[in-house]
Amino acid sequence: MKEFMNVIIKETEGEGLTLSKKPIPEISDNEVLIKVIAASICGTDKHIYEWDEWSQNRIKPPVTVGHELAGEIVMLGKNVVTLNVGDIVSVETHIVCGECEQCRTGNGHICQNTEIIGVDVDGAFAEYIKMPASNCMVNKTKIDPKYISILEPLGNAVHTLTHFDIVGKNVAIVGCGPIGLMAVNVAKALGAKKVIAVEVDEYRIQMAKDLGADVIINPVKEDVIKRMFIETENGVDVVAEFSGNKNAIEAAFKYVKLGGKMSLLGIPSKNIEIDLAKDVVFKGIEIYGVVGRLMYDTWYKVVGLVESGVLDLDKIVTHEFALEDFEEGFKLMKEGKCGKIVLFPGGINE
Amino acid sequence: MKEFMNVIIKETEGEGLTLSKKPIPEISDNEVLIKVIAASICGTDKHIYEWDEWSQNRIKPPVTVGHELAGEIVMLGKNVVTLNVGDIVSVETHIVCGECEQCRTGNGHICQNTEIIGVDVDGAFAEYIKMPASNCMVNKTKIDPKYISILEPLGNAVHTLTHFDIVGKNVAIVGCGPIGLMAVNVAKALGAKKVIAVEVDEYRIQMAKDLGADVIINPVKEDVIKRMFIETENGVDVVAEFSGNKNAIEAAFKYVKLGGKMSLLGIPSKNIEIDLAKDVVFKGIEIYGVVGRLMYDTWYKVVGLVESGVLDLDKIVTHEFALEDFEEGFKLMKEGKCGKIVLFPGGINE
Amino acid sequence: MKEFMNVIIKETEGEGLTLSKKPIPEISDNEVLIKVIAASICGTDKHIYEWDEWSQNRIKPPVTVGHELAGEIVMLGKNVVTLNVGDIVSVETHIVCGECEQCRTGNGHICQNTEIIGVDVDGAFAEYIKMPASNCMVNKTKIDPKYISILEPLGNAVHTLTHFDIVGKNVAIVGCGPIGLMAVNVAKALGAKKVIAVEVDEYRIQMAKDLGADVIINPVKEDVIKRMFIETENGVDVVAEFSGNKNAIEAAFKYVKLGGKMSLLGIPSKNIEIDLAKDVVFKGIEIYGVVGRLMYDTWYKVVGLVESGVLDLDKIVTHEFALEDFEEGFKLMKEGKCGKIVLFPGGINE
Amino acid sequence: MKEFMNVIIKETEGEGLTLSKKPIPEISDNEVLIKVIAASICGTDKHIYEWDEWSQNRIKPPVTVGHELAGEIVMLGKNVVTLNVGDIVSVETHIVCGECEQCRTGNGHICQNTEIIGVDVDGAFAEYIKMPASNCMVNKTKIDPKYISILEPLGNAVHTLTHFDIVGKNVAIVGCGPIGLMAVNVAKALGAKKVIAVEVDEYRIQMAKDLGADVIINPVKEDVIKRMFIETENGVDVVAEFSGNKNAIEAAFKYVKLGGKMSLLGIPSKNIEIDLAKDVVFKGIEIYGVVGRLMYDTWYKVVGLVESGVLDLDKIVTHEFALEDFEEGFKLMKEGKCGKIVLFPGGINE
Repeated sequence: MKEFMNVIIKETEGEGLTLSKKPIPEISDNEVLIKVIAASICGTDKHIYEWDEWSQNRIKPPVTVGHELAGEIVMLGKNVVTLNVGDIVSVETHIVCGECEQCRTGNGHICQNTEIIGVDVDGAFAEYIKMPASNCMVNKTKIDPKYISILEPLGNAVHTLTHFDIVGKNVAIVGCGPIGLMAVNVAKALGAKKVIAVEVDEYRIQMAKDLGADVIINPVKEDVIKRMFIETENGVDVVAEFSGNKNAIEAAFKYVKLGGKMSLLGIPSKNIEIDLAKDVVFKGIEIYGVVGRLMYDTWYKVVGLVESGVLDLDKIVTHEFALEDFEEGFKLMKEGKCGKIVLFPGGINE
Repeated sequence: MKEFMNVIIKETEGEGLTLSKKPIPEISDNEVLIKVIAASICGTDKHIYEWDEWSQNRIKPPVTVGHELAGEIVMLGKNVVTLNVGDIVSVETHIVCGECEQCRTGNGHICQNTEIIGVDVDGAFAEYIKMPASNCMVNKTKIDPKYISILEPLGNAVHTLTHFDIVGKNVAIVGCGPIGLMAVNVAKALGAKKVIAVEVDEYRIQMAKDLGADVIINPVKEDVIKRMFIETENGVDVVAEFSGNKNAIEAAFKYVKLGGKMSLLGIPSKNIEIDLAKDVVFKGIEIYGVVGRLMYDTWYKVVGLVESGVLDLDKIVTHEFALEDFEEGFKLMKEGKCGKIVLFPGGINE
Repeated sequence: MKEFMNVIIKETEGEGLTLSKKPIPEISDNEVLIKVIAASICGTDKHIYEWDEWSQNRIKPPVTVGHELAGEIVMLGKNVVTLNVGDIVSVETHIVCGECEQCRTGNGHICQNTEIIGVDVDGAFAEYIKMPASNCMVNKTKIDPKYISILEPLGNAVHTLTHFDIVGKNVAIVGCGPIGLMAVNVAKALGAKKVIAVEVDEYRIQMAKDLGADVIINPVKEDVIKRMFIETENGVDVVAEFSGNKNAIEAAFKYVKLGGKMSLLGIPSKNIEIDLAKDVVFKGIEIYGVVGRLMYDTWYKVVGLVESGVLDLDKIVTHEFALEDFEEGFKLMKEGKCGKIVLFPGGINE
Repeated sequence: MKEFMNVIIKETEGEGLTLSKKPIPEISDNEVLIKVIAASICGTDKHIYEWDEWSQNRIKPPVTVGHELAGEIVMLGKNVVTLNVGDIVSVETHIVCGECEQCRTGNGHICQNTEIIGVDVDGAFAEYIKMPASNCMVNKTKIDPKYISILEPLGNAVHTLTHFDIVGKNVAIVGCGPIGLMAVNVAKALGAKKVIAVEVDEYRIQMAKDLGADVIINPVKEDVIKRMFIETENGVDVVAEFSGNKNAIEAAFKYVKLGGKMSLLGIPSKNIEIDLAKDVVFKGIEIYGVVGRLMYDTWYKVVGLVESGVLDLDKIVTHEFALEDFEEGFKLMKEGKCGKIVLFPGGINE
């Protein structure tokens, strides 16, 4: 094996990312070395690229970015017995301690000591990555690795939509970025009654339609709250929030029905103001904060859904680039004219 | 309105049913009168026809049979304010007291004082039926009444499959009579991973395939337990039991996985023998007895699923007859060469 | 029976309540007439007395106030078969429609058409009150009616503390008004680990101690957030909010732990500002708005707890007055120097 | 440290146990060495002593028996960072793989590859024992180690009683061996309404009374089913089964109420015969097989309950012996004239 590999790193504070070289990682006893086949770009990567306030507080350059990947195991730590060289895997991106109360009670997704690849430690926009063996989910199907790379964000969508019961219910998907788009598709696959997407961008409105949304509301063009009550009569049963938009979130508290449910994944940058008396207490609603994926309950669900073939993953991945052409991908992300974009460290065969 | 109507009754003890006349029912203040448009035949009706042991203990002739129906409201009791003449409805067939602890805690489906139409009181194989207003579910779609008549047994399937989480999970559907067949279709619509049907009859095996079963095991031809482990590796996640067959149920306790779940709707006529230590306690499984439909949580789910258009109701109804030709329907039921059979008190327009 | 009875009414808009006379109510077919034995004063009654903003929007004078009562059934509507003259009852104060989706799915507590006695219709500070039969919970024990009158607010406390699991967990009781005080006692009776009460008033701090609080934090004297982390190491498992205080609620979002739970009953008069990203989403918490009592699941729990004798109801009722001496009770309420105050329409025998 | 230690072993096939010597265990990187302070005798140990059918199939002599212990950590494997030498611990006795689907989804208690100390690998009737660090629960209170040694079986009782809601409910505790006795005490501490114990032995009937049972039924002296309905009116809400007795279990299916719940921990040696139609399906009940303790959710609950001081642990431990006097303990176990018996490898100071 060669000694150095290509990586995309946040080299120093400030905007942008850099194509660079790093030594191939050495693994410890409980880790595996993974050859990255495909790595998709997440909104978080865009934040890091743009060096927003969150990035400035969290990222310590230099660090290799990227955290959504499909890869092949090429080396095993000496304690690893459940994986094999040659296994095709997707990976959980939260590296957790296993020792805090949350980890010990089946809530590793909110571990007190989480480290995230591509954020806190070196990530997936690289030819190789090391991972704890326990973070790997072996893929036994023949599906294209580009789809395997997006199982991690798909897990966010599945986690958001499976905390509360959506069978036969009216579900609002607020925000149709890539995770919201996947959520539209997942909600239909899990038996929702009416899937109502909220989105302003025309490109993504079209994607939401293609992925199965029954109704799409553009808040720039019409009154979301009013329309929600027209579509549902008594308000929305379950709100799945992916936008992080202050106005969108505050509106959702108005159109969720008596006894309705809200799963919140989007990350608002500003405080939210709530009429708690009227919109939470007297309505008797439930609210759930969604962090990552249940480890690994959500992953088994995701793999089950993918294996059953009910999702339209092919409509979600819209662009593919060689790793070194990452700038093109980030440009598209900025413009919002894309679904999921996948990078290939081994290049693209056309 | 005329005074007498056609009905199919169990006239006296013994086999068979009889076409007869009865006065059109009078309604009380909280009831409505429904003109029956379509009424489907249930396995229970077949038991009553055949006058099996259960029927002998439960049925007090003469009684009008039939309990799955679609109809139009033609008269309202004076206290009824939430329904209108002309509403097309399906009906919950359990008339419950509303006053026992079960009813008062949201568990009306296991009311201590349940009366079932077509069993304990006059039923749906008739031109008219009276029902408590609260038992009616108004249908707001344009779907064919023959499908509305089967929402009640569809509710059994939905209740059975929604008590435990089936998202991304391997689900065994044991027994492909009409409710089992609907369950195959529902399981796929709710995001099950692999739907494995167990059935012996070739006609129904074919229907299960058409309705989406991924795997079908014929226990006459192969070892069910062995095959289940081949298909699932570690055993079945969720068993949905519709057969009531002693051997089939006892086998299910063997192939359900560690921590697996069992929803039991089928009614065995013999005692079941269980190695409780090995197959329940040490496995840490959960078992749920399914009675009817949650009132009315399951109904809202059923209506939501039907309105979203994800079910193949058209593949489930296989035969239609005028009410007076009921004998042809029961003959088919006996032979098992049918899905759901629907009777029309108003005759068939061809 | 005499024709007129003593009542305490909100006669006109503005502060205060008035002792007056009204005809004894006439009952309809599904109602019962109850002779009120004891009626306790709720914080809501105080709001109505004071004619606060909420009252001005909701109350239409003249109306008899009061909604927490114990009474004896003295007359039955003709359809009432499950109650008897002479039954001692407590009553659910929400009169619900039974016909909306919430009512039909076991969520009557958030009925779309709720009417509350003593608020929307005539209430319990009266010699007699009419109630739907289905709102009555018969009491079969020998406990003093003054305790039966407080089962309704006790139900609020039980509802708040049983939505989330508190067994072996650190529970914060925020606000020790009468319901908060009951919650302290209930939390201990249900196996909480450490019950931490938050309260500023010395009289109520002492009551909280007597009712079993392990720790009491006075936010005027110390930093609540800091102290909560000292007491719990990683934050509070379950927050039960009864204060409705903006600062107290916002602080709770800071000290609830990763994956913690919040049950909110207190009614803030101002909007609440939340760092949703940091304190809800990234923490993965769950929030539940508590309305009244689950109908009637919570009531069965309350009755079960009272019958088992594990609660210290005697410490909760601190004052008793004849109905006509209601002004003394409201004066004490204003000063906060009381637990629960009970009024007796039949006077007090000393 | 000395090289050899005292142990109680099953030396060869056949009845009895033997005091012997073994080398002090060597620990691996993720393990700790624990000096055993107290170790209590479980019913399982008695089965191994008596060499019953289960033991003959499971135990491979020679093996050190015993699995309920309190100890002090005296040595740390090099990877262990969350424990300290000097920590007083209780231990989870299931050593699980961490890699199977059950382990990865928070269900380690039903791990596919469980090894139990004192059964499959060397156990706690010894001066020292090695354990995976992750199996240790540090005790931060000052409670006597003899009580810490019984937290493991107490966890069985807590697991059994917390799967279903028992707040304000009638709970049957079937079988008052040590775990059943603890369950009586736990049920009272968690807010059960009426705790009804079923037991034949007079010594244990007396203990059940002392630990809080409201009613005790001796099936030798009266008809259990009939009495249960007298005590509860409509049947028992929650059955907690600890006897493993075929008749007792079959009776429980008769007296559990419509919609009731059954948690089964006792291990019957014979098959159970159930009228599944009448007693499970039509009743709409739920059944749960209880294996060990949820890892580690149940442990946190147990520790919380013990720290809150609501349990009467002092009434549960009835006898103490030096390790070498184990024969006296097993004699008492055989006679049933005991609660929990604790052995002390360091002898007894009197």
